[in-house]
Amino acid sequence: VAVGEAAVVDPDRRYVAVVGGTVASDEMLEMAEQVGRRLGERGAVVVTGGRDGVAEAACRGAVAAGATTVGILPGRSRREANPFVTVAVPTGLGDTRNSLVVMGVDAVIAFPGGYGTLSEMAHALLNGKPVVALGPWPAELPVEGRDDVIRADDVDGAVELAMVL
Amino acid sequence: VAVGEAAVVDPDRRYVAVVGGTVASDEMLEMAEQVGRRLGERGAVVVTGGRDGVAEAACRGAVAAGATTVGILPGRSRREANPFVTVAVPTGLGDTRNSLVVMGVDAVIAFPGGYGTLSEMAHALLNGKPVVALGPWPAELPVEGRDDVIRADDVDGAVELAMVL
Amino acid sequence: VAVGEAAVVDPDRRYVAVVGGTVASDEMLEMAEQVGRRLGERGAVVVTGGRDGVAEAACRGAVAAGATTVGILPGRSRREANPFVTVAVPTGLGDTRNSLVVMGVDAVIAFPGGYGTLSEMAHALLNGKPVVALGPWPAELPVEGRDDVIRADDVDGAVELAMVL
Amino acid sequence: VAVGEAAVVDPDRRYVAVVGGTVASDEMLEMAEQVGRRLGERGAVVVTGGRDGVAEAACRGAVAAGATTVGILPGRSRREANPFVTVAVPTGLGDTRNSLVVMGVDAVIAFPGGYGTLSEMAHALLNGKPVVALGPWPAELPVEGRDDVIRADDVDGAVELAMVL
Repeated sequence: VAVGEAAVVDPDRRYVAVVGGTVASDEMLEMAEQVGRRLGERGAVVVTGGRDGVAEAACRGAVAAGATTVGILPGRSRREANPFVTVAVPTGLGDTRNSLVVMGVDAVIAFPGGYGTLSEMAHALLNGKPVVALGPWPAELPVEGRDDVIRADDVDGAVELAMVL
Repeated sequence: VAVGEAAVVDPDRRYVAVVGGTVASDEMLEMAEQVGRRLGERGAVVVTGGRDGVAEAACRGAVAAGATTVGILPGRSRREANPFVTVAVPTGLGDTRNSLVVMGVDAVIAFPGGYGTLSEMAHALLNGKPVVALGPWPAELPVEGRDDVIRADDVDGAVELAMVL
Repeated sequence: VAVGEAAVVDPDRRYVAVVGGTVASDEMLEMAEQVGRRLGERGAVVVTGGRDGVAEAACRGAVAAGATTVGILPGRSRREANPFVTVAVPTGLGDTRNSLVVMGVDAVIAFPGGYGTLSEMAHALLNGKPVVALGPWPAELPVEGRDDVIRADDVDGAVELAMVL
Repeated sequence: VAVGEAAVVDPDRRYVAVVGGTVASDEMLEMAEQVGRRLGERGAVVVTGGRDGVAEAACRGAVAAGATTVGILPGRSRREANPFVTVAVPTGLGDTRNSLVVMGVDAVIAFPGGYGTLSEMAHALLNGKPVVALGPWPAELPVEGRDDVIRADDVDGAVELAMVL
């Protein structure tokens, strides 16, 4: 069974997590969809928590660009994934899975969210992952006298940072 | 941003886990590759622990058929995936991730392996997932007076069972 | 704030997991309670999955001997612990927590059980923990041509092995 | 095997997590030790991540008061627990265990810390647990327009809140 060179997976393929609220404003959802689309156009795998709101919008955009979207789900069933998740990964870990959403990625783009989003940002920063904030939140994330969150002005800026940092 | 119907992910897409030893005989590796290829040809997503041996062979076969291969990795880095994993999911859970390898699938095809493989079979059976054994192991898995492992005679039989059960 | 030497925790204190069915025969439950009591009398911390059956019986015996009993629970609430768990550890991991039940112990005593018990034995053996079987199960656990499960003839023998191996 | 009423574990026993930096000022460590001692004197089980800094200070104080201290450890060995952990729970989950540190408790007392501490506070708030901050951090934790962190003026106030909320 010969496998051509092309079949080997590109080890430099970029993985980017998009996190944010399960409920979000129309403006944020529109931006999240654009982020997903741009990431997809640039060949990135888009990783999310697989549910509603920002995650679904980002997946929708990425799928429109033909990208792979990974949903790291809190429950045990693939059925809880939003319809734009191409690869559903049930974990059965509940909110504990938040750290897995950001564990395997090269960068995180964060939209406004709640404590779940905050936990994902904290886990990413704890592990030295670049976290790019898009939107008006958080005003600051002051830990040990510094704030490591990178602010992006717009979708293109956020995607560029997530692809190169 | 319009998304065509085709972009929506097929909710009935089949996910099948292939488990077995990280070290295996040439005969078993050849069979695992054939299993991966057949599953890929039938449109299944192939889920493995993402490492060597049976997992790598199954991924190699599936990728040759153009399939998606998910590697649920024990460590925190995508780099530990074998080169035929198209979607790497680092978990940082160590062997505890074994239950996640079989959690989100519709069926499991098991090749001979060690205690890790045994743990994956046990977790799958605990959750009522069909487990199809291929190869000379285990002779039996006697739990509560019964053995729920289904025996397949060959690759085609195993794949057929994993696709329809 | 001075702390006396006696307050420092003995690093050589023994931890032993007791696993087995959530449903078990009266004979097995009686043996599990005796195992818990003997372990407690010898100063061991008894670790279980914290639920019914063998786990509860072992905890009951250990508590009667004044021992600490740790329940590594599948859900998110301490309330699901049996009434003889002195330290409840909710994990929210579901069955995935089975690997944690045996992770931190020095040895495992296994009573007959189902696939959950089998997964705990597999995880323990995968990590080189001594597993002592008590009762008529399993007849064998054949992995890679060998069976590492140690058979004990009776309660005293099982406890002795779990305390010294 | 009769077990007296007294042997049954009190289901209303209070569990309180104490979180904060693995490196902390002498003033914060002194306060953490006092918090542990007060919690222990009031009969609480003190839960921490089991390592250095604030966790160790809180455990030291609690042990001096005769309390049980649970260390939910990131690694697989009990040996990584600080010497004042009376019940060590290795998880092998790495930082993902942070959510487990606060999962099973009735309240959390938070000292200044880094992203790990922030993740623990976020997980606790996500699950509706009272989080009482002691010390100059965080200035705010603005999520969805509100900050649910409760500020305590001193050790006695923090312990009182953690015992009654």
